[in-house]
Amino acid sequence: MTYSLEQLAELTDSLFSGDKNTQINSVAPIDEAKEGQISFVNNPKYISKLSDSKASVVILNSTLAEAYTGNALINDDPYLIFARVLSILYAESETLAGIHKSAHIADSAKIDPSSNIEANVVIEDGVIIEKNVSIGAGSYIGKGTILASGVRLYPNVTLYKDTHVNRNSIIHSGAVIGADGFGFAPTPEKKWFKIPQVGNVIIGKEVEIGAGTTIDRATLGTTRICDGVKLDDQVHIGHNVNVDEHTVIAAGTLIAGSSSVGKRCQIGGAVAISGHLTVSDDVIVTGKSMVIKSIKTAGVYSSGIAADENKKWRKNAARFRHLDELAKKVSTLDKKLNEI
Amino acid sequence: MTYSLEQLAELTDSLFSGDKNTQINSVAPIDEAKEGQISFVNNPKYISKLSDSKASVVILNSTLAEAYTGNALINDDPYLIFARVLSILYAESETLAGIHKSAHIADSAKIDPSSNIEANVVIEDGVIIEKNVSIGAGSYIGKGTILASGVRLYPNVTLYKDTHVNRNSIIHSGAVIGADGFGFAPTPEKKWFKIPQVGNVIIGKEVEIGAGTTIDRATLGTTRICDGVKLDDQVHIGHNVNVDEHTVIAAGTLIAGSSSVGKRCQIGGAVAISGHLTVSDDVIVTGKSMVIKSIKTAGVYSSGIAADENKKWRKNAARFRHLDELAKKVSTLDKKLNEI
Amino acid sequence: MTYSLEQLAELTDSLFSGDKNTQINSVAPIDEAKEGQISFVNNPKYISKLSDSKASVVILNSTLAEAYTGNALINDDPYLIFARVLSILYAESETLAGIHKSAHIADSAKIDPSSNIEANVVIEDGVIIEKNVSIGAGSYIGKGTILASGVRLYPNVTLYKDTHVNRNSIIHSGAVIGADGFGFAPTPEKKWFKIPQVGNVIIGKEVEIGAGTTIDRATLGTTRICDGVKLDDQVHIGHNVNVDEHTVIAAGTLIAGSSSVGKRCQIGGAVAISGHLTVSDDVIVTGKSMVIKSIKTAGVYSSGIAADENKKWRKNAARFRHLDELAKKVSTLDKKLNEI
Repeated sequence: MTYSLEQLAELTDSLFSGDKNTQINSVAPIDEAKEGQISFVNNPKYISKLSDSKASVVILNSTLAEAYTGNALINDDPYLIFARVLSILYAESETLAGIHKSAHIADSAKIDPSSNIEANVVIEDGVIIEKNVSIGAGSYIGKGTILASGVRLYPNVTLYKDTHVNRNSIIHSGAVIGADGFGFAPTPEKKWFKIPQVGNVIIGKEVEIGAGTTIDRATLGTTRICDGVKLDDQVHIGHNVNVDEHTVIAAGTLIAGSSSVGKRCQIGGAVAISGHLTVSDDVIVTGKSMVIKSIKTAGVYSSGIAADENKKWRKNAARFRHLDELAKKVSTLDKKLNEI
Repeated sequence: MTYSLEQLAELTDSLFSGDKNTQINSVAPIDEAKEGQISFVNNPKYISKLSDSKASVVILNSTLAEAYTGNALINDDPYLIFARVLSILYAESETLAGIHKSAHIADSAKIDPSSNIEANVVIEDGVIIEKNVSIGAGSYIGKGTILASGVRLYPNVTLYKDTHVNRNSIIHSGAVIGADGFGFAPTPEKKWFKIPQVGNVIIGKEVEIGAGTTIDRATLGTTRICDGVKLDDQVHIGHNVNVDEHTVIAAGTLIAGSSSVGKRCQIGGAVAISGHLTVSDDVIVTGKSMVIKSIKTAGVYSSGIAADENKKWRKNAARFRHLDELAKKVSTLDKKLNEI
Repeated sequence: MTYSLEQLAELTDSLFSGDKNTQINSVAPIDEAKEGQISFVNNPKYISKLSDSKASVVILNSTLAEAYTGNALINDDPYLIFARVLSILYAESETLAGIHKSAHIADSAKIDPSSNIEANVVIEDGVIIEKNVSIGAGSYIGKGTILASGVRLYPNVTLYKDTHVNRNSIIHSGAVIGADGFGFAPTPEKKWFKIPQVGNVIIGKEVEIGAGTTIDRATLGTTRICDGVKLDDQVHIGHNVNVDEHTVIAAGTLIAGSSSVGKRCQIGGAVAISGHLTVSDDVIVTGKSMVIKSIKTAGVYSSGIAADENKKWRKNAARFRHLDELAKKVSTLDKKLNEI
């Protein structure tokens, strides 16, 4: 689709400067953009690229726009407007409603005729599928699952029984929602007795779940991913976890059973959060951190040691193994010195 | 199903106190339980919740039971009895035997008529499926694979050729068993020549394998997951690894090629164990640890730094990069002081 | 297949000593090999096993071969020759070309008749499948995807639209290529607005991608895995990442968005590389490292603390939290001492 600068300004509640009839059909990075393309500059370090850019329009904040003589779409949140322009220019054509002839659908399932069910999808007893749901090829929808209107599952998603997915949530391929939590009771013979996992998973509205992510069902009750949460690929959410509204979690992060993470948190990738902890609202945890006690105050938290030359690392890591002794030695030295 | 207190006591080899005819139909946490529900208290810190609970029956050890005036199911392992009561009250209705019409089954495969094969399952040549096996929709069973009696695969499991899964083991969705091990020989041109992976994977009895877990086939010989082992979601087991009996491994843990882990170990989540190591029996490794040498003695092992306020972490982590110099400086100070 | 020692020498450009007619049908480790089997010794610590081995032939370098009286296949790169012998003895019988009757193929897809398309495969509009491609059961090939000649997908692989996979690349089960990158713009209401991910993924020639690995499509442009790259299982590659030629990455490693990794790198397992970084050519990063700034020089880089007895670790880790204070204290002591 092609839009004029004036149209884009109107659709994104933005101002503009330059030729209102400039035609835009796609988006590109500032240093790759050509005629007919729109770009954006947000990070001050890219301002130098502005004068050389061949973009027909640049999204800028009002300060930058003042100094710019080309066509500009002006908004004080250029990054958000960039996202909105992308969603306008690249709006997906609506998928046609219909049930592929190879889909296997239980007689008791209720499916709104506006939904799109692709090849080889399996839908079990008692499933409810509301309006405009799209289910990718090969996905499996277990008994009693509810997919609210606008939900989109990409191909090869697996939902175990009794999962609820609320409005407009997106689940990517390979994700598994509702598998058994990891619960075993030790027996006197030092074996493990499986604790039946009889709870479920509820996913809120406008949630996005990345490829290969696993969210386990609760032992009793519900594992809950609240409205607006965004999970990247290969995230793992243990049984009975609660992730509160508008929290984002990057790839490969693991949250162990029964922990809860507050609202509007930003959890980096490769983080591990132990079980039975509470992370409060508005907490940022940087990538690869190890969270082994509750975090009770908003703020930024970190752990981990940055990679160093192997030779230096070996020496420092070897010293770490004797850090307690080193600290004691320093205390002793301190005492001795004070005695002198 | 509903059971009386007396029946539950009999079925779990437990004692009871109170009204033997109390009817129980489900399980709930101690502070959520209502009439008709059974709960349990194991952790002393929840004892205070006992008096307020509306649970019809509470599972308690004999000491706690003495002080309790309500209905109690009495056993000195309340957590195990809780698991057993769950498995009694929530026993799954048996799945009906049968092969879904959309399953594709090679002529040479042998399938016991008591098995349940769901939609779109693909079963290749020479596969043997014993009694009461259940294979979820969309699963793929490669050539020559053997599934022993009682094995359950959830939907969308992939088993490469020649995998053996022994009695009553459970494999969750998205798991991939028997993919090629990661083996490449460097060539003189600094490229990588693929080493054919011609071994297989053997999984013992009563094993459970979590969603999205990957277990690679051996280069030569067998990658082996022994009886009673429980693997959580997104675990990775490299080629030629051996995980011995009744070991449990939490989510996201990686074991590199040719390592072996002993019996009854408990490996936390997000642990990485390097290749060609041996971890002996009865070892506990806490979450996110980095195991880069063999562990030869039973005990608890740990590594990692807990997350701290970012500001403090930055300072400490910067010092870590000079820890060796710091230790040397302390030695110098020590010498100087001794000279004084 | 059975080959004589003379034939194997010819096929692998190697010398041999002993009986040229020795018949070899399979490969085994040096201490398990029996008659008719070939083994190899590369690591000097296994030389002692040579004299006891029942292998009919051993692959050795010329130095070791001189001292060996049995049959030897002689080459100065025994590990590479071992790999080549494996690929000769275990050559897979060619899969028959053909399209399984249950595959769903869009009318506009172009499929070379030499390809093998297994059960339940779904191929969308505009897909191009070249010669001798093999697609495992249940795989999904999104719109406009191109699979070049010799590409092999194992069962249950998911390729989102517009993915290009070049010659002879291999993708294992559960891998998801081209899912949306993790991109969201914050809104004034502290929610997240999804940034449409309109780029794609291009995979080079002779690439191998492990089970459960996820490679996200670019926001704009291309996420690129170059020729000869080998990715292990459960690797995650973020949007707009570039992994250059002949780099190998072990299991569970995560590379965040917009980073690039150079040629011939060897990245260990469980490594996390932050976004927007550059790792130059010929860099080795050891397992579980945390890379949070660019690496500009070839060499070996590491981080992480090895697991220790829990008791010792607790003490050392507690001291780490006060490492900055300790270093300051040492400076103070140093000054005091100098004043004396």
